[in-house]
Amino acid sequence: MPLLGFVLPFFAFVVVLLENARLEDCKELAANVVISLLGFFVTLRLIPSIKDKFTEAGLFGYDINKKGLAQGDKKIPEAVGLVSATIYILCICLLHLFRQSNNVELYTAAFASVTFMVLLGFADDVLNLKWRYKLILPLVASLPLLVLYTGGTCVLVPRPLRFLTKGRSLVELGILYYIYMALLSVFCTNAINIYAGINGLEVGQSVIIALAVLLHNALQLHPGGNKDNLDLLRQNHLFSIDLILPFYATSLALAYYNWYPSKVFVGDTFCYFAGMTFAMAAILAHFSEILLLFFIPQLINFIYSIPQLIGIVHCPRHRLPRLNGQTGKLEAIRTNLNLVNLTLWILGPLTERQLCIVLCSFQAFCCAMGLFLRAWALHWL
Amino acid sequence: MPLLGFVLPFFAFVVVLLENARLEDCKELAANVVISLLGFFVTLRLIPSIKDKFTEAGLFGYDINKKGLAQGDKKIPEAVGLVSATIYILCICLLHLFRQSNNVELYTAAFASVTFMVLLGFADDVLNLKWRYKLILPLVASLPLLVLYTGGTCVLVPRPLRFLTKGRSLVELGILYYIYMALLSVFCTNAINIYAGINGLEVGQSVIIALAVLLHNALQLHPGGNKDNLDLLRQNHLFSIDLILPFYATSLALAYYNWYPSKVFVGDTFCYFAGMTFAMAAILAHFSEILLLFFIPQLINFIYSIPQLIGIVHCPRHRLPRLNGQTGKLEAIRTNLNLVNLTLWILGPLTERQLCIVLCSFQAFCCAMGLFLRAWALHWL
Repeated sequence: MPLLGFVLPFFAFVVVLLENARLEDCKELAANVVISLLGFFVTLRLIPSIKDKFTEAGLFGYDINKKGLAQGDKKIPEAVGLVSATIYILCICLLHLFRQSNNVELYTAAFASVTFMVLLGFADDVLNLKWRYKLILPLVASLPLLVLYTGGTCVLVPRPLRFLTKGRSLVELGILYYIYMALLSVFCTNAINIYAGINGLEVGQSVIIALAVLLHNALQLHPGGNKDNLDLLRQNHLFSIDLILPFYATSLALAYYNWYPSKVFVGDTFCYFAGMTFAMAAILAHFSEILLLFFIPQLINFIYSIPQLIGIVHCPRHRLPRLNGQTGKLEAIRTNLNLVNLTLWILGPLTERQLCIVLCSFQAFCCAMGLFLRAWALHWL
Repeated sequence: MPLLGFVLPFFAFVVVLLENARLEDCKELAANVVISLLGFFVTLRLIPSIKDKFTEAGLFGYDINKKGLAQGDKKIPEAVGLVSATIYILCICLLHLFRQSNNVELYTAAFASVTFMVLLGFADDVLNLKWRYKLILPLVASLPLLVLYTGGTCVLVPRPLRFLTKGRSLVELGILYYIYMALLSVFCTNAINIYAGINGLEVGQSVIIALAVLLHNALQLHPGGNKDNLDLLRQNHLFSIDLILPFYATSLALAYYNWYPSKVFVGDTFCYFAGMTFAMAAILAHFSEILLLFFIPQLINFIYSIPQLIGIVHCPRHRLPRLNGQTGKLEAIRTNLNLVNLTLWILGPLTERQLCIVLCSFQAFCCAMGLFLRAWALHWL
């Protein structure tokens, strides 16, 4: 089954990790591996036993892409991302126990922002807040990060651009860096949230980005060349693995139920949660420029959506393709300006399952390119 | 109106504060006062504009104590405590900005646990979790506190009990102290949650306890006598004021709508949130034994409820009194073992509004006794 596509690249991460990590790194990561595995199995077990509670509470949706079919009349539990998010938060709590000495303030900042984002995301799912609130929520949820952040506010200027800074390699951004962090949180959360609408896409893209981040971290544990602050760099990437590995594990369990044909929907809860987790990992471990490379599909989708987002073109509630009942395939609606429809327009009608595989493959391709660019661009830094 | 009873004692706090505080304390508290005022007005404004969203989302209840009356058929938004809790979390975020230098880890521990508790409380309200989950949730939500807590694990032994400790005044509890913290969180959250069921009681008791905590803090800012660690003691009580003042402000705004006849219900969200906030303030500022004095009505209610909680006596879903349609008064149901029914049994039938005022007065009386005992018991410590 295609979910194997989400598991196999994990072994690439393990291989690179074993290649690059020192013995003490592996010891530190052992607790994370055990907790993540536990998180995976608890999520896998908890979702089927609790999902009917969501339907009973009125948190359900109909699968619009199966309208007219028997499956289209079935109530599907919505916002089940809450389950994986809660287990994730618990995993991060437990990890704290093994990380008392170093980086406590980083863990806490990430913990606080992610928990607050899950709360606001779930409130949004339940209360169906207006669009303007949706944009503000991630900003509000990033407040804990902004007030707790005590790290540097410098950025490294790439070599070709140093003529702008009179040759200086570091530029102090000060308050601008805080604005940058807030905007990145808003972008990541909303970018995943609006690149959605077919079975498995929200979790699929998130799991692939998580894998790319994990691979990037493993590669950077032994970056080669002569770098200053090698220990700090290692600490940063170990911290990022600590945040992302439990995310990968709990999201994978969610993907198992959300994959085509979906038994559960993930809700805004999951999209916000995923976006915030990536933003926290990237900001606190200082690789946000790399994260944006992994977000290229979301960037394309966002830019292409702008005419509808700002209201130049009429924006329906769901901007989905049309199901052709005869062929069982989805067809593009050209006035719905998002990557889902654009792909169908370029490739022709596809089944929902095919479409999700295509989009996930594109995500994987972009992430691979990002990793490649990163390796190649090392000369420029 | 009776809500004035929640505001007037606040001036006692202000007077004691001005009497006992140093100039630098007042400067530090200024930001808190401004933020709390802001929190009050935002909550007051936000609740009416968002409460219909709760009803639309299926989060509503009928006022059981008004069954048969016209008011009993009206849908009342449920779990609106989410609004005051969210504004409270934002207030704590903003306060962080003014407290960067000291006690960051305390603020963060409290922040993380309260946010997580609000998330779990709201999930409980939406999904209607089972009883056994309800007991576990506060334990889970206190995990952030337990893993972040780096303070001491000693307790002060009262003088008359020191023969047990061979005269030592301090006893190191170690891991037992962590168990104690977890149990206190579970007790506070559930004790408020099960002492409920009539308009205004959940918020009413919480606001009065908040006032008592504030008064206790103000009194301890200049404790008199010769005390070791006077500066540490002051820091602890300033920290507790930082946590409780915004809670008082946002809960007061909620009480305005929840008071008889309720326009909104507060939900488990509020009860868990309130209990956890008190537990955090008491644990992190080290006055948990005093907090238990303020919780005497909840303790009585809890102990009296035990036969039903552990299933010796049949336990209906709501353990409310019976409304007499003729008199418009509530009458005790003797098989419902809680303080609400016990009060009616002792005092005879009362209207819902009268009953709430009686119970709130009893709460105020117990808090006053607690404060008195505390002052008197100083000789024993």
